[in-house]
Amino acid sequence: MDFAHSPRALELIEKLRAFMREHLLPVESELLKARHEARRGGDWKQWIVEPEVKALKAKAREAGLWNFFLPDPALAPGLNHVEYAALAEEMGRSFLAPEIFNCNAPDTGNMEVLWKYGSPEQKERWMKPLLAGSIRSAFCMTEPDVASSDATNMQATATLDGDEVVLDGKKWWSSGIGHPDCRFAIFMGVTDAQAERHARHSMVIVPLDAPGVRIVRMLPVFNDYDEPYGHGEVHFDSVRVPQANVIAGLGRGFEIAQGRLGPGRIHHCMRCIGAAERALELLIDRGMERQAFGRRLIDLGGNQERIADLRIAIDQARLMTLYAAWMIDKVGALKALTEISAIKIVAPSVLQRVADEAMQMFGGAGLSNDSPLAAIFAHARVLRLADGPDSVHRAVIARREIGRRSKGGGSRAA
Amino acid sequence: MDFAHSPRALELIEKLRAFMREHLLPVESELLKARHEARRGGDWKQWIVEPEVKALKAKAREAGLWNFFLPDPALAPGLNHVEYAALAEEMGRSFLAPEIFNCNAPDTGNMEVLWKYGSPEQKERWMKPLLAGSIRSAFCMTEPDVASSDATNMQATATLDGDEVVLDGKKWWSSGIGHPDCRFAIFMGVTDAQAERHARHSMVIVPLDAPGVRIVRMLPVFNDYDEPYGHGEVHFDSVRVPQANVIAGLGRGFEIAQGRLGPGRIHHCMRCIGAAERALELLIDRGMERQAFGRRLIDLGGNQERIADLRIAIDQARLMTLYAAWMIDKVGALKALTEISAIKIVAPSVLQRVADEAMQMFGGAGLSNDSPLAAIFAHARVLRLADGPDSVHRAVIARREIGRRSKGGGSRAA
Amino acid sequence: MDFAHSPRALELIEKLRAFMREHLLPVESELLKARHEARRGGDWKQWIVEPEVKALKAKAREAGLWNFFLPDPALAPGLNHVEYAALAEEMGRSFLAPEIFNCNAPDTGNMEVLWKYGSPEQKERWMKPLLAGSIRSAFCMTEPDVASSDATNMQATATLDGDEVVLDGKKWWSSGIGHPDCRFAIFMGVTDAQAERHARHSMVIVPLDAPGVRIVRMLPVFNDYDEPYGHGEVHFDSVRVPQANVIAGLGRGFEIAQGRLGPGRIHHCMRCIGAAERALELLIDRGMERQAFGRRLIDLGGNQERIADLRIAIDQARLMTLYAAWMIDKVGALKALTEISAIKIVAPSVLQRVADEAMQMFGGAGLSNDSPLAAIFAHARVLRLADGPDSVHRAVIARREIGRRSKGGGSRAA
Amino acid sequence: MDFAHSPRALELIEKLRAFMREHLLPVESELLKARHEARRGGDWKQWIVEPEVKALKAKAREAGLWNFFLPDPALAPGLNHVEYAALAEEMGRSFLAPEIFNCNAPDTGNMEVLWKYGSPEQKERWMKPLLAGSIRSAFCMTEPDVASSDATNMQATATLDGDEVVLDGKKWWSSGIGHPDCRFAIFMGVTDAQAERHARHSMVIVPLDAPGVRIVRMLPVFNDYDEPYGHGEVHFDSVRVPQANVIAGLGRGFEIAQGRLGPGRIHHCMRCIGAAERALELLIDRGMERQAFGRRLIDLGGNQERIADLRIAIDQARLMTLYAAWMIDKVGALKALTEISAIKIVAPSVLQRVADEAMQMFGGAGLSNDSPLAAIFAHARVLRLADGPDSVHRAVIARREIGRRSKGGGSRAA
Repeated sequence: MDFAHSPRALELIEKLRAFMREHLLPVESELLKARHEARRGGDWKQWIVEPEVKALKAKAREAGLWNFFLPDPALAPGLNHVEYAALAEEMGRSFLAPEIFNCNAPDTGNMEVLWKYGSPEQKERWMKPLLAGSIRSAFCMTEPDVASSDATNMQATATLDGDEVVLDGKKWWSSGIGHPDCRFAIFMGVTDAQAERHARHSMVIVPLDAPGVRIVRMLPVFNDYDEPYGHGEVHFDSVRVPQANVIAGLGRGFEIAQGRLGPGRIHHCMRCIGAAERALELLIDRGMERQAFGRRLIDLGGNQERIADLRIAIDQARLMTLYAAWMIDKVGALKALTEISAIKIVAPSVLQRVADEAMQMFGGAGLSNDSPLAAIFAHARVLRLADGPDSVHRAVIARREIGRRSKGGGSRAA
Repeated sequence: MDFAHSPRALELIEKLRAFMREHLLPVESELLKARHEARRGGDWKQWIVEPEVKALKAKAREAGLWNFFLPDPALAPGLNHVEYAALAEEMGRSFLAPEIFNCNAPDTGNMEVLWKYGSPEQKERWMKPLLAGSIRSAFCMTEPDVASSDATNMQATATLDGDEVVLDGKKWWSSGIGHPDCRFAIFMGVTDAQAERHARHSMVIVPLDAPGVRIVRMLPVFNDYDEPYGHGEVHFDSVRVPQANVIAGLGRGFEIAQGRLGPGRIHHCMRCIGAAERALELLIDRGMERQAFGRRLIDLGGNQERIADLRIAIDQARLMTLYAAWMIDKVGALKALTEISAIKIVAPSVLQRVADEAMQMFGGAGLSNDSPLAAIFAHARVLRLADGPDSVHRAVIARREIGRRSKGGGSRAA
Repeated sequence: MDFAHSPRALELIEKLRAFMREHLLPVESELLKARHEARRGGDWKQWIVEPEVKALKAKAREAGLWNFFLPDPALAPGLNHVEYAALAEEMGRSFLAPEIFNCNAPDTGNMEVLWKYGSPEQKERWMKPLLAGSIRSAFCMTEPDVASSDATNMQATATLDGDEVVLDGKKWWSSGIGHPDCRFAIFMGVTDAQAERHARHSMVIVPLDAPGVRIVRMLPVFNDYDEPYGHGEVHFDSVRVPQANVIAGLGRGFEIAQGRLGPGRIHHCMRCIGAAERALELLIDRGMERQAFGRRLIDLGGNQERIADLRIAIDQARLMTLYAAWMIDKVGALKALTEISAIKIVAPSVLQRVADEAMQMFGGAGLSNDSPLAAIFAHARVLRLADGPDSVHRAVIARREIGRRSKGGGSRAA
Repeated sequence: MDFAHSPRALELIEKLRAFMREHLLPVESELLKARHEARRGGDWKQWIVEPEVKALKAKAREAGLWNFFLPDPALAPGLNHVEYAALAEEMGRSFLAPEIFNCNAPDTGNMEVLWKYGSPEQKERWMKPLLAGSIRSAFCMTEPDVASSDATNMQATATLDGDEVVLDGKKWWSSGIGHPDCRFAIFMGVTDAQAERHARHSMVIVPLDAPGVRIVRMLPVFNDYDEPYGHGEVHFDSVRVPQANVIAGLGRGFEIAQGRLGPGRIHHCMRCIGAAERALELLIDRGMERQAFGRRLIDLGGNQERIADLRIAIDQARLMTLYAAWMIDKVGALKALTEISAIKIVAPSVLQRVADEAMQMFGGAGLSNDSPLAAIFAHARVLRLADGPDSVHRAVIARREIGRRSKGGGSRAA
C-alpha cells in the first residue's frame, strides 16, 4: 500500500501548479468579473471564448500540459486514472483550468468514447480536433419529460432508415452545447425498443448544423448559465445522419454509456476536491481577516470545529475518489461500481457543504459574485444530480451489498 | 394551552387563502416568468412594478387584506404577533403576496419603527404613505468592510452639525432599495463612539434623493437580484438631513434595532414555513407524477422517510415560531431572545433543506427556473445570514442557558 | 393560540416540583446507587421495592399527587392530555418519580385500557388496585420470532374453548413483568386468523400465577435490567383463563391497541423532555466546573453552539409533544396519527442526542454509573424501538402526506 | 499510488482469517454467553481467563499469528503500520481476537513504549513476558478529578526521593487493570511542576503488588465491565519504586505519551472498521431474514439507502485510517497529527452509527445481549472518549489548518 503519487504524476502536478500560479490565477478573477459584467445571461449566441483563454490554451498545449485525462501514451501523457485524479484536483481549483488544459467535461468523456469505440473515420474527423482543442462537443442523454435516471424511460429514438439514422426527441441538460466552438453532439436514443434491456440504445454523432437540430434555450442553475458551456435544451426533429455516425454499432449505446461514466465521475469528483480545498482556504482566510466581539471570526463559537470537520470530510472524499480511480485502473469500471457510486454521492455533497459553510463565514459577500463561492456552490449542486441523483447511486451500492450477503460473502468485496 | 388560532385570525386566513387562490396564484407564475425573460438582471433602474401587481395591491387593500403585521387596531386589522404569524405563513407561499398585502420586508419593519418611535411629523410624512402602499423604503445597517454581526464594528457615522445630521459611510445588503417606489431609507450610524456601548448609534430617515446618496450596485444572491426589491450597496458621502429626521433621538439606534428585530424575524420565519409547505407539495407531486424502475419516484428508496422527516421538521419549526410570537405578545421581544434566536436558526435552515430535497426529486428542472425551487432556495440561503448568521444566534442562546445555570436555575426559563 | 398551561396544571406542576425537591431528589441518587451495589442484575426474583419508595408512594398519594394521567375526574385529578404532559415532563427528570406518583408505564396504559374498555368486574378486580398502587401489571405484545412492528405477524393465540380462553405463544420485552408487585399481564393474541385484518386479535387479562405462564428471563438494555420493572421474556403454554378476562370482547384487540398507544406515547415523550432537560443541566454544570487549556470546558471549541442546538432541539420536541397531546384532546388519537408518530420519532432521539453530548462533556464519568447519563441514554435508546421503530412511524407520516396530496389537498392537514 | 496490501500482509490476512474461522468464531459466542451468565459484573477479583482462551493463545502463538503490532522483525513479524492495520481490522471483528493474537490494548502500547524507550533490564523483566503473553499490563494516565484531556491538569506525582521514585495520586479508566494476569502498570505523574510544559511528567513502571497501590473499583461502560480487562479506578498512596523503573528518564513522560498514541489510535480505529463490517453484516442479514408488511425488512423504507450510507462511511473511515498508518510509516506520528486526530474522530463515530442502525434493524434483540451489538456499541462509545474526546482532536486539526494558512500555505499539507 502506497499513498504517494508516481514520480510522473508528481512532476506534472508541479508543472501544472506552476502554470496555474503564473499564468492562470492572475487573470482569472478579472476574466470572470468581465463575464458577469457583460451580462449575456442565457443568450448563448452572444457567448465568446475570450482571447486570453485561447492564448492560455495555446500556451498550455505548448507546455505539454494537455489532455491529461486520456490514458493513451500515443496521444497524450498517458496517465492512468489515479495519476490523472491528482491533476484533476488541481484543475478543480479554477473555473477556467479544465478547458485551458483540454480536460473539460463533456469533451473528455466524448474523446474517451471515440478513442475506445470510434471508427478510424470518426477518430479522424471528430476526436482529432477535440484532442487539439479546436472544437468542442456536447452529450445529449437526459430528457425533459421523463425521469432520466432510469435509461428504460428514454423516449428519444435513433432509427435506421436505409443507410441513414433518423434522430427524434427532446433532450436537455446537454452540457457544453452553448460553447461557440461546439460542433457536434453525441446523441443517445432508442433503436430497438423490443431488444434486451441493455441492447436497445445507440449512440450517434450528430453535427450541430444538421437540419432538424434546434437548440431551444439554455438552462440556468441558480440563474447561472455556466457560460460559455451552458446546459442546453435541444430538440431533434427527423435529423438524418449517415449510419457511419453510429458509434460502435447500433444497440451498443448502453454499454458505451456505462464505460463512459466511471472515469467521468472520477474527473468530476476530483475537481470537487480541488474546489473544496479552495473554498476551505477562502473560509479560513476570511475568518482570520475579520473580527467581531473582540476576536477573529475564526476563534468564535464552533468555527474551529467546523474547519476540522471540513478538513476530515475533504480528506476522506479525496481518498475515496483516489481509491475508486485505482479500482478502475486495476479491475475496470464495471467491477468498481460501489466505489464509483460512493464518490458520486460523497464528493459533490462535501463540496456543497464546504461552500455553504464558507458562505456563512463570508456573510453577504459569499452569496454575491464578489467571491467565487456562489459559483462553486451552484457547481456542486448540479453535480448532485448530473450523472444520476444520489438516491440512484445509493440503490446501486445497496443492491451489491445485499447481493454479496445473500451469497454468504462478507459485507465487503476486497 | 390552546393551539387553535383565534376566530379573528381564522377568518382572515380563510379570506387571504381565497384571495390568493382566486386572484394571485393564477397570474403569479406568468408574471415571474416574464420577469425572468425581461432579463433586467441587476440593472435596477430598469426594474418595474407590473400593472398586475399594482392592481392586486389595490384589490387587496379594498378587501381589507392589508397591513396585517401592524398591531394597531386604529391603522390595521390590529392582530397580535401570533395571529399575524398564521397570515405570514400563507403569504410565504408566494413571492408576490407580501407586497400585494403590504406586508413585505423591510417596509413592515420600517413601519413598525415609525409607529413605535416616530414623531408625529415622521409618521405623517413617511409612515402614512408606506401604510398606504404608495411608497417603499429600505433599511441601511450592514456594511461591506466589517463583520456587521457585531454592532460595535459599525463604521458609518451620523454626526450632529448644527440642526442637521451628517451621514457618512458605506452600506450594503440594503434590501428593497432597488424598488421603483423606494423613497427613503432608515440609516443607522455611530453618533457618539465614546458613549456607552448601547447608546452610540442613531437611526435617521434619509430620502434617497438627498445629495450624497449613491446606490452603487445591486448584489445578487446566487445571481438572483430579487427584483424589484434588490439588495443594494449604497454609499453615503456627507449626506445632510434635518435633525428632525432622527428617529426617537440621537443615540437610540441600538434600542430601536433590538425592538425591530423580534417581530421581523417572526415574519421572515413564518414566511419560510409557508414556502417550505409549498416546496414539500411540489416534491410530493413530482414524486407521484414521475416513474423510474417501474415505480413512482415517491415509492423509491428513502423518499417516503424523507417526506416524513421534512413534515416533522416543518411542523416543529412552525410550532417554535408560533411560540416565539406568543412570547413576544406576552413578555416582549427582549425576554424572548432565546426563542427568537432559535427560530432565526431553524426556519431558514428547514426551508433550505426542504428546497434542496425537492430539487433532488425534480432533477435538473429543480435547478432551473422552470420551478420556483431555485428562487425558494436562494431566499432561504440569504435568510441564514440576514439579521445575523446562525452562529451569532447560537451564542445568544448559549449565553442565556449558561447564565441561568450559573444562578442555579433550571436549564429552562418557563 | 395560548401556550400557557391551565391554572389547574400550573398549580399541580408547582406542587409536584416541590414534592420532588423536598422528598424525592434528596434520596434518589443514594437509592439508585444502592440498587447498583446490590448487583441483583437480571435475577428478578431478588428484586425489591425499597421501603423508601413505598413510603414516598404513600406520601404522594396522600398529597393528592397521584394518577395524573387518568382523564377521569371521578378517579383522579382528571387532567386532559396537554395538562398531564407538563407533569409527565417533571416526572421524567427522575427515574423513581413515575412510580411514586403512580404514573409509570406500562401500568398507566393498562389502567387506561381497563378504564375505557374494561367490564365492571375487571375494573373492580384489576383496575382498582392498580389505581391504588398496590399492584403492578405488564403488557405482552411483542414477540421474539417475528418483526412485531407488523401486527399481522403476531403468532401468539388466544383461542376460545368453551367459556375459557386458551393463551399460547412467546412474548418478550414485556415491560414491568419483573416487578415484585406485578400480578397480571394484558396478553394480546390472535383469536381468528381469518377475520378482517383489524378484527383478528384479542386482549386478555392473565394473572401471572396462572398455570402455563413462565417468565423465562429478563432482557437487558445495555446490560441494564430496569430493576424493579424489567423487560421479560414470557412463554404462555396452554394458559387457560375465563372468558370474562377478555377485554371488550374477542377480536377487539387491535382497536384497543390503537387507542392505548396515543396517550402512552405522549407520556413517554414528555418524560423524555424532562430527562433531556436534566441531561442538559448536567452537561452545562460539568462544563462550568472543569477546566482545560486555561478555560472552562464550556468555553472551548463548539461547546456553546452545541448547548444552543440542544436547547433548540428540546424546545421543539416539547412543543411538538404538547401539540400532539392537544390534538388527542381535541380530535382523538386516530386523527392525530401524524403528530403522534412525529413525537415518537423526535423525543427519544433528542434525548439520546442530549445524553450522548453530555457524556462527551463528562468524559469517562458519563459512561459509568457515577452520573445518571448512561441510564438516561439506555432509556432513550430502548424508546426508539418500543411502540414501533422510527421507520414504521416515518411510513405512517409519509402515507398520510402523500394521501392528502393525492386528493389535491395541501401538504398540511390543519 | 497503490491501494493493495503487500504480499506479506495479504498472506498473514489469509492465515488470520482462516484461524479465526476455524478456531475462534466457533467458540466465541458460547464463551461470551458463559461470561454473561456467570454474572461476575464488576467484581474483578472473580474474573478469569477461560481455558479455551488460553488454549487459543497458545495455538495462535505456535502458528506465528502473534505480536503483529510490533514493527521489529527480531521479535515479531515486523510489519509496518499500514500492514498491521489490515490485521487489526480482522481482529476487530471479534471481542476475543486481540488477546488471542497478543495484540490487545493497552498491552500493545505498553510493549511499544518499552521496546522504544525501555532499558535492557525493563525489556527483560517486563516486555519479554508481555511479548510472550504470559502477563498483562495497564496504563494509568486519566484522573477522576480533572479534565484529563489537558495534560497540564494532571495531579498525580512521581517524585524522586533518593534512589526511589514515590508515586501519589488517583487514576481511573486504567484499562486492563482487572485482568487476572495483570502484573504492572505504567504510571504517569508530574515530577517537576516548574519545568517546561513538555518536560514535567515521568512514566514509571509500577508492579501492582507494590505497597500503596489500591484498585478501588472497576468502572462500567453502559454497565459493561469489559471483563476480564476492566477499566479501574486506582489510588496510589506513597508508592515507592526504584528509580530504575522510570522509563527513559525523569521528565520524558510527555514525549513518550505522544509517541505512544499515534500507533495506538491506528490499532483502535482499524478494529473499529472490522467491528463496523461485522455490525453491517448483522444488519443486512437480519433485514433479509425478517418480514413485515409483506416485504423483507431490508426492502422497507429507507433501509437500502441506509446500508449504502453505512458502506460509504465505513470505506471512507478505512481509507482514512490506512492513510494515517501510511503517514506514520513515512513521516512519523508527530507529522501525521492531523490524520491521526481525524481517524480518532471518525472511526469510533462510524462504528457507533453502524451499531446504532443495526440495533434498529434488530429491534429489542439488538439491545439485549442476544446479539453482540450492545457490546459493540459500548466499545465504540468509550472510544469516542478514550485517548482524548473528539473536541480535543478537532482543535488539533483546526490549529494546524489555520497555522498553514497563516503562513500563506495551501489548506492542505501534501
